[in-house]
Amino acid sequence: MGSKRKGILERLDAGEVVVGDGGYVMQLERRGYVKAGHWTPEAAVEHPEAVRQLHREFLRAGANVIQTFTFYCSEDKLEISGNVKGITGAQINEAACDMAREVANEGAALVAGGVSQTPCYVKSHSEPEVKAIFKKQMDNFMKKDIDFFIAEFFEHVEEAVWAVEVLKTSSKTIGVTLCISPHGDMDGVPPGECAVRLVKAGADIVGINCHLDPLTCVRTVKLMKAGLDKAGLKAHLMIQPLGFHTPECNLGGYVSLPEFPFALETRAMTRWDVQKYAREAYNVGIRYIGGCCGFEAYHIRAIAEELAAERGFLPPASEKHGLWGAALEMHSKPWVRARACREYWENLLPASGRPKCPSIATPADE
Amino acid sequence: MGSKRKGILERLDAGEVVVGDGGYVMQLERRGYVKAGHWTPEAAVEHPEAVRQLHREFLRAGANVIQTFTFYCSEDKLEISGNVKGITGAQINEAACDMAREVANEGAALVAGGVSQTPCYVKSHSEPEVKAIFKKQMDNFMKKDIDFFIAEFFEHVEEAVWAVEVLKTSSKTIGVTLCISPHGDMDGVPPGECAVRLVKAGADIVGINCHLDPLTCVRTVKLMKAGLDKAGLKAHLMIQPLGFHTPECNLGGYVSLPEFPFALETRAMTRWDVQKYAREAYNVGIRYIGGCCGFEAYHIRAIAEELAAERGFLPPASEKHGLWGAALEMHSKPWVRARACREYWENLLPASGRPKCPSIATPADE
Amino acid sequence: MGSKRKGILERLDAGEVVVGDGGYVMQLERRGYVKAGHWTPEAAVEHPEAVRQLHREFLRAGANVIQTFTFYCSEDKLEISGNVKGITGAQINEAACDMAREVANEGAALVAGGVSQTPCYVKSHSEPEVKAIFKKQMDNFMKKDIDFFIAEFFEHVEEAVWAVEVLKTSSKTIGVTLCISPHGDMDGVPPGECAVRLVKAGADIVGINCHLDPLTCVRTVKLMKAGLDKAGLKAHLMIQPLGFHTPECNLGGYVSLPEFPFALETRAMTRWDVQKYAREAYNVGIRYIGGCCGFEAYHIRAIAEELAAERGFLPPASEKHGLWGAALEMHSKPWVRARACREYWENLLPASGRPKCPSIATPADE
Amino acid sequence: MGSKRKGILERLDAGEVVVGDGGYVMQLERRGYVKAGHWTPEAAVEHPEAVRQLHREFLRAGANVIQTFTFYCSEDKLEISGNVKGITGAQINEAACDMAREVANEGAALVAGGVSQTPCYVKSHSEPEVKAIFKKQMDNFMKKDIDFFIAEFFEHVEEAVWAVEVLKTSSKTIGVTLCISPHGDMDGVPPGECAVRLVKAGADIVGINCHLDPLTCVRTVKLMKAGLDKAGLKAHLMIQPLGFHTPECNLGGYVSLPEFPFALETRAMTRWDVQKYAREAYNVGIRYIGGCCGFEAYHIRAIAEELAAERGFLPPASEKHGLWGAALEMHSKPWVRARACREYWENLLPASGRPKCPSIATPADE
Repeated sequence: MGSKRKGILERLDAGEVVVGDGGYVMQLERRGYVKAGHWTPEAAVEHPEAVRQLHREFLRAGANVIQTFTFYCSEDKLEISGNVKGITGAQINEAACDMAREVANEGAALVAGGVSQTPCYVKSHSEPEVKAIFKKQMDNFMKKDIDFFIAEFFEHVEEAVWAVEVLKTSSKTIGVTLCISPHGDMDGVPPGECAVRLVKAGADIVGINCHLDPLTCVRTVKLMKAGLDKAGLKAHLMIQPLGFHTPECNLGGYVSLPEFPFALETRAMTRWDVQKYAREAYNVGIRYIGGCCGFEAYHIRAIAEELAAERGFLPPASEKHGLWGAALEMHSKPWVRARACREYWENLLPASGRPKCPSIATPADE
Repeated sequence: MGSKRKGILERLDAGEVVVGDGGYVMQLERRGYVKAGHWTPEAAVEHPEAVRQLHREFLRAGANVIQTFTFYCSEDKLEISGNVKGITGAQINEAACDMAREVANEGAALVAGGVSQTPCYVKSHSEPEVKAIFKKQMDNFMKKDIDFFIAEFFEHVEEAVWAVEVLKTSSKTIGVTLCISPHGDMDGVPPGECAVRLVKAGADIVGINCHLDPLTCVRTVKLMKAGLDKAGLKAHLMIQPLGFHTPECNLGGYVSLPEFPFALETRAMTRWDVQKYAREAYNVGIRYIGGCCGFEAYHIRAIAEELAAERGFLPPASEKHGLWGAALEMHSKPWVRARACREYWENLLPASGRPKCPSIATPADE
Repeated sequence: MGSKRKGILERLDAGEVVVGDGGYVMQLERRGYVKAGHWTPEAAVEHPEAVRQLHREFLRAGANVIQTFTFYCSEDKLEISGNVKGITGAQINEAACDMAREVANEGAALVAGGVSQTPCYVKSHSEPEVKAIFKKQMDNFMKKDIDFFIAEFFEHVEEAVWAVEVLKTSSKTIGVTLCISPHGDMDGVPPGECAVRLVKAGADIVGINCHLDPLTCVRTVKLMKAGLDKAGLKAHLMIQPLGFHTPECNLGGYVSLPEFPFALETRAMTRWDVQKYAREAYNVGIRYIGGCCGFEAYHIRAIAEELAAERGFLPPASEKHGLWGAALEMHSKPWVRARACREYWENLLPASGRPKCPSIATPADE
Repeated sequence: MGSKRKGILERLDAGEVVVGDGGYVMQLERRGYVKAGHWTPEAAVEHPEAVRQLHREFLRAGANVIQTFTFYCSEDKLEISGNVKGITGAQINEAACDMAREVANEGAALVAGGVSQTPCYVKSHSEPEVKAIFKKQMDNFMKKDIDFFIAEFFEHVEEAVWAVEVLKTSSKTIGVTLCISPHGDMDGVPPGECAVRLVKAGADIVGINCHLDPLTCVRTVKLMKAGLDKAGLKAHLMIQPLGFHTPECNLGGYVSLPEFPFALETRAMTRWDVQKYAREAYNVGIRYIGGCCGFEAYHIRAIAEELAAERGFLPPASEKHGLWGAALEMHSKPWVRARACREYWENLLPASGRPKCPSIATPADE
């Protein structure tokens, strides 16, 4: 039971840094349990041991929140995708809640029930229809023991507002993140105004997830904060960016890059990139700091390590990691031993090993 | 029990393609269970569920062999490393064997007991001392139910020969791989001669693992084959290369690259790179085809998918993967749908997303 | 005598495209006649045959204007530089005028007397002192037969305004260009406002030269045009950008790039890059189109060739150049013959041949 | 008259470094006087002032030899090319000799009559026919005052041998260079054997020109030297490589690169690259050191500056160049002043400014 733990708002109100978890669908795709293109979470029922292990890795890496593996788990999405036979959305949502709770309880973590954009929104633009979908998923979660909600991956702030309005009826705390660029949402609503609308709708925590790289997402959250400040509103800030470099920074994010989704390897963040990001996010005032697609356990550990001084402790997985490469001190090659220091890794410009490839691509939607 | 399964030699003699598994230490480092610099496998005892899950991913991806997670698990290495307290090498070796067997039995896979280079060799160059270490580790394995041995990651063919000579006394089949470049081993022995020495020592399967990228390793195995042909010797060929691009191709391999071991992300192979590699390896006559550091489950699946026609079947994990990106056909963006074809992925030159980084590095040992 | 030729305003008023010449100091530095760091034009006296030849190349490539080789030829600059012994500024200015006239008369070209920023401005900010310097240089020019003035390479619009105010007293036509980025001049005055101030001061033609790459400069001129439109002002537009790629696009321009001034080779524009630029400039409404540092004769020819249809003729040097590589049709290698077409060159992404180098640098003033 | 000057062999025999000149056809193509694809030297008659100026730049930069601008000036090539109307080969050859002599006499330089590969060789393989062509061109030269011959740009050593055999009848000194890679000539004759054949045919100086980058050409000359040493033969060594980076280093050289001939800018050598090359060439024992296509005057000056200590003097053009960027000391920006030192330029990795381009290309003949 999570009931005796400090809740998410208690933590954030107290000024604590809350480390989020990493990305599930891309990592489980690589492990063989999720189908790219569909990206639906039936593995929660089909292969619970695989999902449970990934939850544990994030927990061990320092995550304070375990998100239920329920991405795209609305009835309309499952149906359109056509990938999941003989399993209902309710079954997945409920199994995912149980599993998240089980792992969260192995540490002091909280469980966040995850809700995401629906195909119905783009197709129908019908508020009652879209809200009914969110309501149904929320009802699944409310049968289980979750601590708060995260509504995420919205390209249109309007849909996110609808999600918040539905989830608000649960009286749970609500975090909400958009997958938009500094240019604004798909309807051209700038980040600052998006944040204002979400807070007015009842969100407790607002921010950005997915679609663009960490430093770009930090910039967008900064714009959200500026919008809230200007409107005299207050909310906690959260961020769960891509674990990939996307300097092209277009409206559509990494979905528009030629490498999506099967050749993103070259763009992956190193742990040192993540430390730089965690510091930047912290400096901007964001206190809920995690990752989305591309964030593996060691990236989450890098957040926890970068902010260890502020938080006063290291995560369990740091027992297997020397800070700034310290464990290389015992390597047999002298030039590798020389890398056991912060200066080396902070300044390294890693080579791609691909001399016939460019460094920047042309996004499909440019 | 593996006893009723076709053995490794039966399979290779019959001309079957045997798919190996991927890399353990680097992947488990990222998951939080192995310490870089040490790279020792105490997780087999400390966190068996994490190792078991990785075995399962490789099995599901199509691996026909599960290697025991016993890399660097010689007494001398564990002692020097100083990373493992209160656990003996025997405990790790035995736990690793049990776990590999458990997972192998969930499919039709074989278990290979893994032995690797010892620090003792470089320090002492004493044949009796080094052989005693191999003997001790072999004795651990022989208490358990393994199908054959893989002796791997040797920079000096002499040490590999000693390993083979010891393992030979078990009367098990022996595969042996060196981590050398086309230039030869660390003493300048060319690949062809290395292969000859290993086969004369009793190895049944010879080849290359780790240190350099797939196409470079294919070239080295080709040189081994040419050496055997010239000497009128016969052996099966195996390959388990890095999952990273290393065009610099120096003697010391990726250990000499500035990115080793904490910034290799940019160099990671895509699944399409792996398909190209699997085809090349097959064309050269290699029939035991797997991976080493950097090979994740989806890379192993890519081997199995590339050679599906030759083998007559797909691996279990292909139920979550459309061949050549076929599952993208149902994506909501038209430009992503257009990527649901072989031509797109085969010709893509993925951008690094890092315009301030070079494409090639200067190896430390150049 | 240029007196019977159509003047610069006549041409521009008639909607003609006027092709400017290319860069002198960088090219003559490479040829051995100008000293980098000083960049002063004493070669006009010391080695007139070298300057004359470069004038001729630009004329032959299609330039309609020959600028006097008088860059940095103010008394204060020559003195500070300390590079020129025993030659006065007046001698250089007068020799340069004679030589420009001589070559211009070999075609139907006009002569523009060139005036540029003074060190005095930054040091003293004294309007009388700076204006006295411009006055002195103008008096040199007025003894000779020039057609109009170009005041160029100003980082501060205020100094450019002063130059225009002085030159205005000559009753010659005045073109004036700033070397600023789209962000504005060094005092933060945006391009649009800069243009307004210059036209109000009496400039007939306004635009941008040097410091940034062609497409960036086109953007800046576009902003100048928008500023003029908004203010209800009219002026002709001109552009003479760098012949180097500077995607970093910082305030200080290429002077801040690590490659300045002795390693800019890799950034050089191809003739095809220039054709793209000429088209863009034309489409934006710019009619005086030339180049600055890095623009060699073949780049000027590329402007003239791109706009040949609009202008109705090709430059003399096109007798030695097949449009879009047409002359390659007679090459002995089939793959080179295949390049005798527009599609090939328009789509080529030229490799740097430098795999250890990055594609983008960090400007010194970032 | 060159008669009182020390001859080329006198100089080389005395151990002097002889600085060659740079490339004519590519540079004059950019200046508007040579047609790419044809590459014929009719400008010697049509635009002598342009050729004379380029000769002078090389002389001023330190060249000890002025090569006649007679590349591809054999009757068969001129005819096939079809580019030159109303001018005979004899006219070009003779005008070129006069002009080279005129400029050479302005310094202490020698004149080398230049002969190059003939289309006839590939078409006919007829020794009498090819030799007749060389004989005719030689006769043109012998009417004029040249100091020695350079036969250059041969892809087949056999043709070069024929050229040497013809030129030998003039009793002039003969230098001969092949445009081959370390892999050997187009018939697979290795560089060492090529050198032996050329020296046996009567060449006094042998080496490499064009087609590949400086460090690659140094490697090839080294192989030639090794071949001569092994055969117990002696000859002076010369080198006149490309001024472009060609790391792909294929058989066909830069003609096979996608960028040939109109997008080679990105590959251009900096002066610092050239200094490194000059040092390498010197260390290998080469004493005739110049350049071919891509070598401009400042590249030749860089050779002379790098070897100034060995030679005891600087070239005239160094009056306009501070060694290792020393003249930047007086620049107005502090970060540019900081570049007035050897360390800066020696270690700079220049960025391409082209993030969408690769660093290495795939040669057409790969």
